[in-house]
Amino acid sequence: MKSDNFEAWIALGQQTVERALEDWVPTDAPAGLGEAMRYGVLDGGKRLRPLLVLAASEAVHGHAQAALRAAVAVELIHAYSLVHDDMPCMDNDVLRRGKPTVHVQYGEAGAMLAGDAMQALAFEVLTPDADRPDSMPPALQARLCALLARSSGYDGMAGGQAIDLASIGKQLGERTLRDMHRRKTGVLLQASVMMGAACGPASTQATKALSDYGAALGLAFQVVDDILDVTQESHVLGKTAGKDQDANKPTYVSVLGLEPARVLAQQLRAEAKAALAASGLADVSHLSLLADSVVERVN
Amino acid sequence: MKSDNFEAWIALGQQTVERALEDWVPTDAPAGLGEAMRYGVLDGGKRLRPLLVLAASEAVHGHAQAALRAAVAVELIHAYSLVHDDMPCMDNDVLRRGKPTVHVQYGEAGAMLAGDAMQALAFEVLTPDADRPDSMPPALQARLCALLARSSGYDGMAGGQAIDLASIGKQLGERTLRDMHRRKTGVLLQASVMMGAACGPASTQATKALSDYGAALGLAFQVVDDILDVTQESHVLGKTAGKDQDANKPTYVSVLGLEPARVLAQQLRAEAKAALAASGLADVSHLSLLADSVVERVN
Repeated sequence: MKSDNFEAWIALGQQTVERALEDWVPTDAPAGLGEAMRYGVLDGGKRLRPLLVLAASEAVHGHAQAALRAAVAVELIHAYSLVHDDMPCMDNDVLRRGKPTVHVQYGEAGAMLAGDAMQALAFEVLTPDADRPDSMPPALQARLCALLARSSGYDGMAGGQAIDLASIGKQLGERTLRDMHRRKTGVLLQASVMMGAACGPASTQATKALSDYGAALGLAFQVVDDILDVTQESHVLGKTAGKDQDANKPTYVSVLGLEPARVLAQQLRAEAKAALAASGLADVSHLSLLADSVVERVN
Repeated sequence: MKSDNFEAWIALGQQTVERALEDWVPTDAPAGLGEAMRYGVLDGGKRLRPLLVLAASEAVHGHAQAALRAAVAVELIHAYSLVHDDMPCMDNDVLRRGKPTVHVQYGEAGAMLAGDAMQALAFEVLTPDADRPDSMPPALQARLCALLARSSGYDGMAGGQAIDLASIGKQLGERTLRDMHRRKTGVLLQASVMMGAACGPASTQATKALSDYGAALGLAFQVVDDILDVTQESHVLGKTAGKDQDANKPTYVSVLGLEPARVLAQQLRAEAKAALAASGLADVSHLSLLADSVVERVN
């Protein structure tokens, strides 16, 4: 698919992921749990992480069914983290993607359980029974579970959240801020790329390059997020704007200033593209365009 | 090891699991996260689930390193569920194993994140890099992840919690109560047995029998738990006694009465032992004694 069809590729990818989520997030879980899980993950977001999985898998001519499962799994992890993050004991946010947050809709206990079950479901999606027609080799299942577990746990996303919580009201240097964001957001974005890459054969050179691409893109994402938090209004963001500023959380904008943050985002985009060029892979146009869309996104 | 050495076997198993948890639950996770995780899982409990994994693996002459990883992983899942379950929005319990609960010690956000990170760590422990000396075959990694994910998610533990929450103040029949407990507690206990069984070669007959054993034992555990909730005092239980009764939660005792609940526990023990006898496995003495200890436990 050529780059001028990028919008169509995005739409198709989002649709495919949405349909898979519709299929795999249960309708029949007991006592409203399935409903809360579906509310928390369906019909929302740009599906950036799944698109990164699919684009990276394409670049290495990966196992398509495995990539779709990986895409769904990483989105489930992302979605569960938002559900828990929005809760009163964390960010206490009542609005997400323009809708009431899960705990507003289903209560705090409902939101906590839905998040917990979404995390478990991610690993369930990655480990289909071998006799299913859409299954994948067990070694690939194990590899994908390993990548997802490491990137979402104490050394990744959950660790980043912990630093974030501890940092409220504190002065952080750029170095600590970068470490926090690398864990909180960057590592899972990078893992999305690596999970896609794991779905196909990739040389050591290509794997290293895709990892560098994912790291630069992950950081760029957060820098842009911090910029948008101060430059956009809530109805455009689909969440409460100025939240980080109000909570006195350190951001790239508060640490660097608005213009230097914009410059940094452009530098990281250039880094991501340089990594793609060094990968030796022929078909990286979607990965390249995804880096553009991260830096240029309005929402 | 013979059955008269059962106490020694228990002590050794507990020690081995404790040491592995000491090694694998991080000391270096950022911003107090590792500390909260360690507080939530180390130095506590009888380690029934890990012991079931180890005993089942022994019965099928399983891969010892894999069984230890499975034992640790299932305990991490169990421990995370307790951390989340104790939180104010769920059971609001301040005492667990005689100590202040995690959220009392580390705050609600700290407890939620610690639980989230413990769940991820469970899957990390199950998927060691292939080049580690204590690694295991990728197909076994995938199988163990599958068993753990299914038993802890919407169709297992989290689903049971959801029914539990929804049932407060309601009249439940024995059938619904049984379904709730099967999911909430039984499925993970059964999965412990199945994860141990997955570590070795087991015939279809043996696998089926161990599954039946696990189901009976899982239910027996909850029946006994409900009995202890009304017959023991807090300082013996190490948690707040009479909690379920006070919360007007349906229990086996409230639905069946105390004596019929005791009779049911004995019936379930007999079922568990009958399943072991039907397994065709020679070395099931520890599994058999574990069933005794579940039904006879004082605490």
